[in-house]
Amino acid sequence: MLKPEILDPQGQAVQRALPRLGFEGIADVRQGKRFELEVEGPVDDAALARIHEIAETFLANTVIEDFDVKVEAAEADAAAKAES
Amino acid sequence: MLKPEILDPQGQAVQRALPRLGFEGIADVRQGKRFELEVEGPVDDAALARIHEIAETFLANTVIEDFDVKVEAAEADAAAKAES
Repeated sequence: MLKPEILDPQGQAVQRALPRLGFEGIADVRQGKRFELEVEGPVDDAALARIHEIAETFLANTVIEDFDVKVEAAEADAAAKAES
Repeated sequence: MLKPEILDPQGQAVQRALPRLGFEGIADVRQGKRFELEVEGPVDDAALARIHEIAETFLANTVIEDFDVKVEAAEADAAAKAES
């Protein structure tokens, strides 16, 4: 996501349009990118460090963007969990 | 995010570039949009229903995209929690 101090024209455009569409009560809108990376093998510390490096050096522009790395179970696992 | 059955050329371009940058072990990459909406007042069921409607009718193209609505504490609360 863009750093808080960076102007976000896309987010502002969305925020200005919401009242015209009848949606009130939204104080701010920020827009950013989301990447989902499917990892071969376990997501251990080494894999997480590698993904953090991929995000920092390739997926995010760290001059103007902050990024966050979160681990989510793959849909298959999630579906299995949901059923068990 | 684009639905699984929809081709994601941006995600594929990232995935093809990773080995050239020395990053192995990433089986798939999907790219999508992320919006952060700051809500005035409590995020109760009514606010959540409204945000779900904003996402469905305005922020996502539900013909080709799936979306997910998650509630995250605002940075200020998170910072307060982190310190407490």
